[in-house]
Amino acid sequence: MISKWNCKFTRWKMTLGQKFGILERLNAGEIVIGDGGFVFALEKRGYVKAGPWTPEATVTHPEAVRQLHREFLRAGANVMQAFTFYASDDKLENRGQALKITGAQINEAACDLAREVAKEGDALVAGGVAQTPSYLSCKSETEVKAIFKKQLDVFVKKNVDFLIAEYFEHVEEAGWAVQVLKTSGKPVAASLCIGPEGDMHGVSPAECAIRLVKAGAQIVGVNCHFDPLTCVKTVKMMKEGVEKAGLKAHYMVQPLAYHTPDCNCQGFIDLPEFPFALEPRILTRWDMHQYAREAYNAGIHYIGGCCGYEPYHIRAVSEELAPERGFLPAASEKHGLWGAGLEMHTKPWVRARSRREYWENIRPASGRPKCPSLSTPESWGVTKGHSDLLQHKEATSTQEMKHVLEKQKKVKSSA
Amino acid sequence: MISKWNCKFTRWKMTLGQKFGILERLNAGEIVIGDGGFVFALEKRGYVKAGPWTPEATVTHPEAVRQLHREFLRAGANVMQAFTFYASDDKLENRGQALKITGAQINEAACDLAREVAKEGDALVAGGVAQTPSYLSCKSETEVKAIFKKQLDVFVKKNVDFLIAEYFEHVEEAGWAVQVLKTSGKPVAASLCIGPEGDMHGVSPAECAIRLVKAGAQIVGVNCHFDPLTCVKTVKMMKEGVEKAGLKAHYMVQPLAYHTPDCNCQGFIDLPEFPFALEPRILTRWDMHQYAREAYNAGIHYIGGCCGYEPYHIRAVSEELAPERGFLPAASEKHGLWGAGLEMHTKPWVRARSRREYWENIRPASGRPKCPSLSTPESWGVTKGHSDLLQHKEATSTQEMKHVLEKQKKVKSSA
Amino acid sequence: MISKWNCKFTRWKMTLGQKFGILERLNAGEIVIGDGGFVFALEKRGYVKAGPWTPEATVTHPEAVRQLHREFLRAGANVMQAFTFYASDDKLENRGQALKITGAQINEAACDLAREVAKEGDALVAGGVAQTPSYLSCKSETEVKAIFKKQLDVFVKKNVDFLIAEYFEHVEEAGWAVQVLKTSGKPVAASLCIGPEGDMHGVSPAECAIRLVKAGAQIVGVNCHFDPLTCVKTVKMMKEGVEKAGLKAHYMVQPLAYHTPDCNCQGFIDLPEFPFALEPRILTRWDMHQYAREAYNAGIHYIGGCCGYEPYHIRAVSEELAPERGFLPAASEKHGLWGAGLEMHTKPWVRARSRREYWENIRPASGRPKCPSLSTPESWGVTKGHSDLLQHKEATSTQEMKHVLEKQKKVKSSA
Amino acid sequence: MISKWNCKFTRWKMTLGQKFGILERLNAGEIVIGDGGFVFALEKRGYVKAGPWTPEATVTHPEAVRQLHREFLRAGANVMQAFTFYASDDKLENRGQALKITGAQINEAACDLAREVAKEGDALVAGGVAQTPSYLSCKSETEVKAIFKKQLDVFVKKNVDFLIAEYFEHVEEAGWAVQVLKTSGKPVAASLCIGPEGDMHGVSPAECAIRLVKAGAQIVGVNCHFDPLTCVKTVKMMKEGVEKAGLKAHYMVQPLAYHTPDCNCQGFIDLPEFPFALEPRILTRWDMHQYAREAYNAGIHYIGGCCGYEPYHIRAVSEELAPERGFLPAASEKHGLWGAGLEMHTKPWVRARSRREYWENIRPASGRPKCPSLSTPESWGVTKGHSDLLQHKEATSTQEMKHVLEKQKKVKSSA
Repeated sequence: MISKWNCKFTRWKMTLGQKFGILERLNAGEIVIGDGGFVFALEKRGYVKAGPWTPEATVTHPEAVRQLHREFLRAGANVMQAFTFYASDDKLENRGQALKITGAQINEAACDLAREVAKEGDALVAGGVAQTPSYLSCKSETEVKAIFKKQLDVFVKKNVDFLIAEYFEHVEEAGWAVQVLKTSGKPVAASLCIGPEGDMHGVSPAECAIRLVKAGAQIVGVNCHFDPLTCVKTVKMMKEGVEKAGLKAHYMVQPLAYHTPDCNCQGFIDLPEFPFALEPRILTRWDMHQYAREAYNAGIHYIGGCCGYEPYHIRAVSEELAPERGFLPAASEKHGLWGAGLEMHTKPWVRARSRREYWENIRPASGRPKCPSLSTPESWGVTKGHSDLLQHKEATSTQEMKHVLEKQKKVKSSA
Repeated sequence: MISKWNCKFTRWKMTLGQKFGILERLNAGEIVIGDGGFVFALEKRGYVKAGPWTPEATVTHPEAVRQLHREFLRAGANVMQAFTFYASDDKLENRGQALKITGAQINEAACDLAREVAKEGDALVAGGVAQTPSYLSCKSETEVKAIFKKQLDVFVKKNVDFLIAEYFEHVEEAGWAVQVLKTSGKPVAASLCIGPEGDMHGVSPAECAIRLVKAGAQIVGVNCHFDPLTCVKTVKMMKEGVEKAGLKAHYMVQPLAYHTPDCNCQGFIDLPEFPFALEPRILTRWDMHQYAREAYNAGIHYIGGCCGYEPYHIRAVSEELAPERGFLPAASEKHGLWGAGLEMHTKPWVRARSRREYWENIRPASGRPKCPSLSTPESWGVTKGHSDLLQHKEATSTQEMKHVLEKQKKVKSSA
Repeated sequence: MISKWNCKFTRWKMTLGQKFGILERLNAGEIVIGDGGFVFALEKRGYVKAGPWTPEATVTHPEAVRQLHREFLRAGANVMQAFTFYASDDKLENRGQALKITGAQINEAACDLAREVAKEGDALVAGGVAQTPSYLSCKSETEVKAIFKKQLDVFVKKNVDFLIAEYFEHVEEAGWAVQVLKTSGKPVAASLCIGPEGDMHGVSPAECAIRLVKAGAQIVGVNCHFDPLTCVKTVKMMKEGVEKAGLKAHYMVQPLAYHTPDCNCQGFIDLPEFPFALEPRILTRWDMHQYAREAYNAGIHYIGGCCGYEPYHIRAVSEELAPERGFLPAASEKHGLWGAGLEMHTKPWVRARSRREYWENIRPASGRPKCPSLSTPESWGVTKGHSDLLQHKEATSTQEMKHVLEKQKKVKSSA
Repeated sequence: MISKWNCKFTRWKMTLGQKFGILERLNAGEIVIGDGGFVFALEKRGYVKAGPWTPEATVTHPEAVRQLHREFLRAGANVMQAFTFYASDDKLENRGQALKITGAQINEAACDLAREVAKEGDALVAGGVAQTPSYLSCKSETEVKAIFKKQLDVFVKKNVDFLIAEYFEHVEEAGWAVQVLKTSGKPVAASLCIGPEGDMHGVSPAECAIRLVKAGAQIVGVNCHFDPLTCVKTVKMMKEGVEKAGLKAHYMVQPLAYHTPDCNCQGFIDLPEFPFALEPRILTRWDMHQYAREAYNAGIHYIGGCCGYEPYHIRAVSEELAPERGFLPAASEKHGLWGAGLEMHTKPWVRARSRREYWENIRPASGRPKCPSLSTPESWGVTKGHSDLLQHKEATSTQEMKHVLEKQKKVKSSA
């Protein structure tokens, strides 16, 4: 194991600063650890707006984006995904962002930030595209592909290490994206935001994966929308499909850091708690250990995260797979494995928690006895949930908002 | 948005760069918003080790500390607390940190970082001391005070705006700290980590507050260990005590961002989930609105946070109190009030969540149906934790059963 | 122990069918086991109507009442409480029962049934009175006492063994009842339906108990409204009060068989689940073991049950106290102690449940992941709960009911 | 109320005391309401022992069995199932009941009691056989059939109205039972204790139903092991299978009165709460309304209950289907529909509960905040229960940590 680590370390230096690429790593049987989702993490930090979810912070607050990249690097991530989510021009327009910043500016800044931090460690830079409003509004294949091409131009110009088509609910659109990205000659990963029931047109995970591999993706998998174990299950279905079809691929998984056993096929969007009351569902670091192990055991070697992930979640993935990788991440200098940091606590009953068994078996309480354990996903016309009950109430929120805003205006004008 | 800031900004500029001090603000009836706890936030980001909880990152990773300060500033905080928690020399030693960094270096770096960011907005710098291992190991008043003096020397040298004695479980030690801090001539706040049952010697919140005010603290309150509503309740008890005693003070509260209805008098340390499985207990932003309102209504005007707080929690406090303060924080440019950011969501049932009533009434599910709602706090010798019960309990059942059955047989045969 | 049982058994026979009275038993240090509440048990069996809760079944369906008495006797009960709850004339009228049966008829039949079954074993017959609508509508002491007197006349005529004034929310009215019952010369027990916060006028449990003892009650305690551990706690407060006052009494407790940690001072009536959705709160037999032990340890020797109790709950009380009593109840022939009946199950993991540790430590799941653990008690004008949300909905129930009833009429008329 | 009964009553009398048989009723589109399970109900009353679950009470305590029959009759049941569960000779022996009562005596007494009560109303008497230990221990078809024949002889002698082969985990054995029962010429119903995953040999519900119909059963369905909605789902699968196969049958469902969303294929036996801590799972009467409606809508016309059912559960089924049946059951004289009995309650917030919407939408709390919502079914060798995991898991954490740390040291020193 040690030699493996040595090998990699030496390898890097020997190649004069030229890191091994994503496919070389996966082909060699290495584990590639992804980063976590940026929109949710930066929303909590005050730099991304929930609703639009657009990444203009790469331009307006580069220090915040850079810092988050750094934290994931420290946590063991081998991939710095340029923060280009929803940075296609049609999306930026659609989201009503009257920005003076263009999509190209955002994408370029994102690539620069990712590269800057990637250089600080053993990480690759990935450029990504995601599903477009153009597809959902039934624009033509040509039009949708043009959107992807525009983002790709930046990625090529900035010479990212590989490309990811991710967060697609429809395999058809993902396939188009793969086709566009393939024109660059760079490695292409394709990741859908689907669960075991398949894509929004009812195409099964197995069939989705086959189509993506046939379209040219070398890595396939899922991201977002479901919790880790559900995502691992889905990628396993993809892998079985690809293998049965006599094809070959690498596999990736980048799930939510939220428990979502109660989701329907559209994932956490339909949960009543989305996106502002998901806190009780956040996974612990110990949940992450289980996830990392199950993903690895399933033959998935590109293992990362999406919405809800904080750097310590990725660190836990790195720590679980440290025996296989041969090293711990930098951030583990600030973490005792399995609670070892508690060994010198003054209270004996807290000291007694510095054991793997303790944390592996804990069933953490919510502290919310008046809340349920599971919710009913919403989806008008399909199931009637809680919101149905509430919909007849007066929508006074807007009024109150107006009130506050008016008060503010007065403050302004009186200043 | 900038105009929103005018009022304060103008005042600041008019006073020739001299911000109003903490007491001037509180005396004028202003709300002072505190920041959140740094140890937990930076632990998740990979810069603080759980267990020791020491702030050497101020020296080793200043960019991470600076970034967190900035995020709280953007969220509306008026106080940048220098990250000096547990940075007393006895604690650093005690925690086995074989650091080549001295306590003085950490404290100085912390002050510089706090000042650097405070200058970027309308915030004051506070220097803080906390309870010491020296006190717990029964060192003399002189020895304990010497510890505080050493930290104070740095704060005076760096000319912080005011001082906080916080996270004390014993009012006696807190009183000593206040006495030391008072020698500087700067305003002094004193904050205990106690709940409604009082300090670890059984001194009631009311009596604690009276003693601290008499020792010279101009601001008294509580921080850490309990959830917001419990902390507000405790500070209300303090306020009633101070007022009944014919004394005067300002009040502060900086609670956990975790729901802890099941805590005993020592707070969240004794919960089985501390510190690595507290996720399901994290407060939502809407819980923060309720907290901010209740704190304000209780006459507490210095309102901040401690462990578990992320910048968006402080932003929620700022947003709830925006009508009183007359402005929104900078980070609200990335946040629609009461879910307004969802107004243009493509799914109508998600759009329907852009209302105050929706989020105010939500009872969020944990997604963990195999977990309980409440835990039993641990405390050996006082209450027995569950696993403890399982292990040490005598297997008397069979014996007792046999005993009774034998008795019955005898009864029958003798009948 | 065996000799104790022998002694009692012999004693009974030796006294030629004359059982020892309630006070003789308690004075001798014996445990007296009560029965369970009849209104809830018979409501589930189809003989009592929830709402009026009146006991006309003693006349209309004596076999059902007799059978329930018998089951409690088999379960170990030493008291057959005549089923006279709410059988005062003012209550029967008030409840709109257009019965052709008088209160006297009901009370007489109840006494006869209780006596008939009591003779089958070692049980005493008790006659009881409960709070009256007359008191609540501010009738005079004289008028209220007249109500009690009327019921007492039947009890005297039927020569019950002792009397119970139970289910009083106001100690004042309970005191009046005790005064009336004392005129009979029979032993009198007095039991309030209060919790640790005291009676509805704010009189503390200690003070309530003192007043009842002074009024002449030889046994005091609580019944109904709260779960067993809350009731035991309340009776302990009563006992401490009585002892501090230099008085003497015996103590009784007859709680709900429902978990009610979320109740306010008025008990389970205010829970949103009352009375038709209390199922998830029902205590297990193992909860009963804990209750019986805690009650006994608290010095309470008259231990029974109220609403929610089924015969197996009383059997569990008898089994827990079998070592002290020296015998098991008759129904234990159909029960293996602590799950022993599972010892020969075909599945090894079910066999493994035939252990005391297993059942003592089980945390039973509700199977209801969309339900909370605790409710908010309702009380308009005080707290706003769930019902508040619901109150603006159309009250279509009555219409629907009318619909069904009309449909029925048509069926009738067409027949 | 009596007039409500006229229609049926008249019909009955017109046919000269000869009630319509089970098939005539079902063929005419009538709803047949079953009774509830006797073993669990009588266990709570003290007459059946959990573990053996045998019905010797028909001989030793006929009054208790008779009373339970009567309560189900009052609740609206049209079938009095003779209490012959597990009364085959091999079972009685196997259960180690050193009874001086033979299987024949028990079966005869059971039939007499059922007939006695059935005569009091509009109910039929059914004789039943259940799965045998002989089958499980791999005895021959001939031997197993001989067991059924012995019970059948009694049913023929006592001239029951129809026969039920119920509680079979293997369709093969159920088929044998049907073949034996068919020799009597009486109508035969066949009911498996399976869920949607099929029988213990993996035969699907659809295939099971087809085999049973081909074996001669006129009514097929499921009973026990799963909650009502799961059972309805299973019978729907049976119905679809039978219809697709071009066959005809009537359908029956007699589920548990426990919520079991967390069961595996073997049903509630494997739940950790079975059989002594199932209380929190008990269905409310309102759950029963939903069940009855869904069963009826699914085309199932023989609707009853099994373990956990109390008479009020069956009454709720009868009340839900009162519009279709044209009358309410006798026990409804003691029940206001949808909480109507609360209309005159003194507290307005309790009165407000006398509405269908209230009870239909209630999410009842368990009052057990330290318990989970769902359990993990036990099944050694398949899934490991929680305590099992705790005990046998190797404490590898420290070892693994050391291993990794040593590797790191070597890496560092070799770097």
